[in-house]
Amino acid sequence: MDAVDLDVKLAVIAEHWSLKLVATLNDYDVKLVKLQGDFVWHAHDATDELFLVLDGELTIQLRDRDVVLGPRQLFVVPRGVEHCPRADGEVSALLLEPRGVVNTGDAGGALTHAAETLT
Amino acid sequence: MDAVDLDVKLAVIAEHWSLKLVATLNDYDVKLVKLQGDFVWHAHDATDELFLVLDGELTIQLRDRDVVLGPRQLFVVPRGVEHCPRADGEVSALLLEPRGVVNTGDAGGALTHAAETLT
Repeated sequence: MDAVDLDVKLAVIAEHWSLKLVATLNDYDVKLVKLQGDFVWHAHDATDELFLVLDGELTIQLRDRDVVLGPRQLFVVPRGVEHCPRADGEVSALLLEPRGVVNTGDAGGALTHAAETLT
Repeated sequence: MDAVDLDVKLAVIAEHWSLKLVATLNDYDVKLVKLQGDFVWHAHDATDELFLVLDGELTIQLRDRDVVLGPRQLFVVPRGVEHCPRADGEVSALLLEPRGVVNTGDAGGALTHAAETLT
């Protein structure tokens, strides 16, 4: 594989909440996403999920508190923990989780999308 | 767990090549490292290894080419591929790989260190 320039990849992402696969590490997917607005409450029962913010400010709402992340800050949502990302402005983030994890977890709904490979 | 501010963590890393554990994702370790100079040629036969550069310019020497990474650029060294990181100036990077991977892989030697938890 080649080096991945996150800014080159981000430049061609137009829609929000659509996960773009940019690299794989064993059976894990490295994905980029642009976020704006509220996502849906959901949990991933089988896996943790890592968010690393690149640009903007992301609030990961948990049932008992909010975790606020700026650039170069990361958070791992533990498996089974309900969370709902919220971005008041536009946020760029890197996500890491095992291949095949559904973005909306156990919630489903209109925002459910498979990750697409960003070429 | 709490949010991890990579810059707060980096500020307390003094020595080069010493991996500091800052988060875990399932059975994967998220580590920070400051690099300067030449590492040793080695390979990890059982796993890929992800490098994400945060500051500075990192050259990952492969046997057939060099991969040069600046900030917000990442590269996954495939399992079994010999590589030797080199940093002419100081580099800060995030590494991701399964728990227990030895930094020097199959090479061993004086630079072999277990990752330490950075509290």
